Amino acid sequence: MSAPRGHLVRSEIAEQPAVADRVLSAAGGELARVAAVLREAAPRAVLLTARGTSDHAALYAKYLIEVGLGLPCGLTSTSTLTVYGATPDLRGVLWISISQSGGSPDLVESTAAARRAGAITLAVTNNPGSPLAAAAEHHLDVHAGPELAVAATKSYTAQLLTLWLLVTTWRAGDLTPAQEVPQFLAQAVAADDVPEVSARYRFVDRLVVTARGYSYPTAREAALKLMETSYLSAQAFSAADLMHGPLAMVDADRPVIAVVPEGPGGEAIAPVLAALHERGADVCAVAPAGLAPDATVRLALPSGMPEDLAPIVQIVPLQRLALEMAVARGLDPDAPRGLRKVTETR
Amino acid sequence: MSAPRGHLVRSEIAEQPAVADRVLSAAGGELARVAAVLREAAPRAVLLTARGTSDHAALYAKYLIEVGLGLPCGLTSTSTLTVYGATPDLRGVLWISISQSGGSPDLVESTAAARRAGAITLAVTNNPGSPLAAAAEHHLDVHAGPELAVAATKSYTAQLLTLWLLVTTWRAGDLTPAQEVPQFLAQAVAADDVPEVSARYRFVDRLVVTARGYSYPTAREAALKLMETSYLSAQAFSAADLMHGPLAMVDADRPVIAVVPEGPGGEAIAPVLAALHERGADVCAVAPAGLAPDATVRLALPSGMPEDLAPIVQIVPLQRLALEMAVARGLDPDAPRGLRKVTETR
Repeated sequence: MSAPRGHLVRSEIAEQPAVADRVLSAAGGELARVAAVLREAAPRAVLLTARGTSDHAALYAKYLIEVGLGLPCGLTSTSTLTVYGATPDLRGVLWISISQSGGSPDLVESTAAARRAGAITLAVTNNPGSPLAAAAEHHLDVHAGPELAVAATKSYTAQLLTLWLLVTTWRAGDLTPAQEVPQFLAQAVAADDVPEVSARYRFVDRLVVTARGYSYPTAREAALKLMETSYLSAQAFSAADLMHGPLAMVDADRPVIAVVPEGPGGEAIAPVLAALHERGADVCAVAPAGLAPDATVRLALPSGMPEDLAPIVQIVPLQRLALEMAVARGLDPDAPRGLRKVTETR
Repeated sequence: MSAPRGHLVRSEIAEQPAVADRVLSAAGGELARVAAVLREAAPRAVLLTARGTSDHAALYAKYLIEVGLGLPCGLTSTSTLTVYGATPDLRGVLWISISQSGGSPDLVESTAAARRAGAITLAVTNNPGSPLAAAAEHHLDVHAGPELAVAATKSYTAQLLTLWLLVTTWRAGDLTPAQEVPQFLAQAVAADDVPEVSARYRFVDRLVVTARGYSYPTAREAALKLMETSYLSAQAFSAADLMHGPLAMVDADRPVIAVVPEGPGGEAIAPVLAALHERGADVCAVAPAGLAPDATVRLALPSGMPEDLAPIVQIVPLQRLALEMAVARGLDPDAPRGLRKVTETR
């Protein structure tokens, strides 16, 4: 008897509280050592390089680094090194490569080039034996365990938590709020509101996902999950960018998923929600109770999460939504057409 | 008698060769002075900040700076300063803000904050009298003249050319290749292949635009133009990112517009074109004759453009496509629903 469609993704989503426990348990070891090295090195700038889901973890790290450390920070355009052969001077620059598999040749090649150019290199992967881990001077394991589904889930939240712990340790911040992440993840894994939203969106072929600040990577990652498992046209916009053009295409036929955290990012998105409401948009709020009260439907998040940790939990109902929508459409989210687990690009 | 729909966008697209001439004529003045200041300052990193169309000009500048100057470079997340109140140390960092109007409050506020944090600040706008021009220490006018259509066209190519001239002057490179830009633009404005592609895509509601390297901003800007004028779900992916997930949603019903320049970026996209061909995707190549021979339809570009200048011309057939598709759908690209020329976000 063959396993039901999506059983891999389903079990990997459910593992996330346990993975977070493992990440937290390991934080005193190699992560603390790397954080101490970075504090001592005091880099002049930070560059992050990644693709796909890991690129959304990189974007999350960018917010943590800009706000928490006040360092200039950018996501790299890998092609500048691998396609155009740029030879930058990266002395004093921290180069962080993030990849589940640690196997994508362009990341390995660009990280090796960055190291030759003088950068302090750090790879964050789910495979300490990977070529990327070997190419970088330092490595952090995200401890997600083998991820078998093509659509990444547990490795993503493990990356986010690892990066939060790294940046917070580096800036000598308080690590205790992270202790609550596993229980918040467990609540999100068990919430019973996904089927209603999945049923409502059964025949949707275009939707928009929006958020602001720390939660913007959640919107990007949710759109990618929906694209790669249900073949939807799911488009993510920062709520500010949405107002600069794409708002024109939002109408009553195109639902908008809005990720609304407690904190300044949630407050900043309020005028955008009002504009959407005014246009008659069908809005699904991924939000703690009480926020975004005008939303048409909701995927509830736990209350009381610090805004910078909330993305680790926000993605869970959206991973579940992508899974349920794919299965309802007769698709297999464990093995989307045309994709392999390790993507080889240059 | 009212003017025909889209007449503003149409005339502003046609003005682009003349605008490029103005930009080139002005390059010896303030631009040369600012470039000399930047060379002398030797910044440790460059941050670019912009929204909407101008954000694609910023992305183009990022490639120029990374490849041509070898400096670490990032696109800022404006909210880190305006929403989260980060107080970074930006001494020795060059902060470039790009905006057609120079009026968006979040850009003005974040540029003022960057200046207080010690950054060398440069505003690139189409309005020397704008608040953004006043907030920055240095200002470059892109000389596009008043832009009346909500969908930006001539200000975009003027931004690209200004930024190319700035970076090339800064690195003491050869400015002469840019002299050919006006005639290449004139060819692109006059090409007769837009109606065929516009007719073919009359009933398309979802499409993908892809490119690599220097041309990736073209894909992003084309997608935005199609979204804001025709309300399509147009999604842009770097050709490398397309292989990391979104490829799953490409099928025979979703055309792919591929921007293929002469040079390493065009070579790097070849395997992606092969994968699309294998999936039976309907591909429109925006390319000089001879490249991407398997494409279903073509928007021809002039041959002989250096790859780093090509984006200034590549966008023109795509601006024209967005215009013609909007008009064919009974929409007004001069005034998309729900948008204003100056978007006020924080």
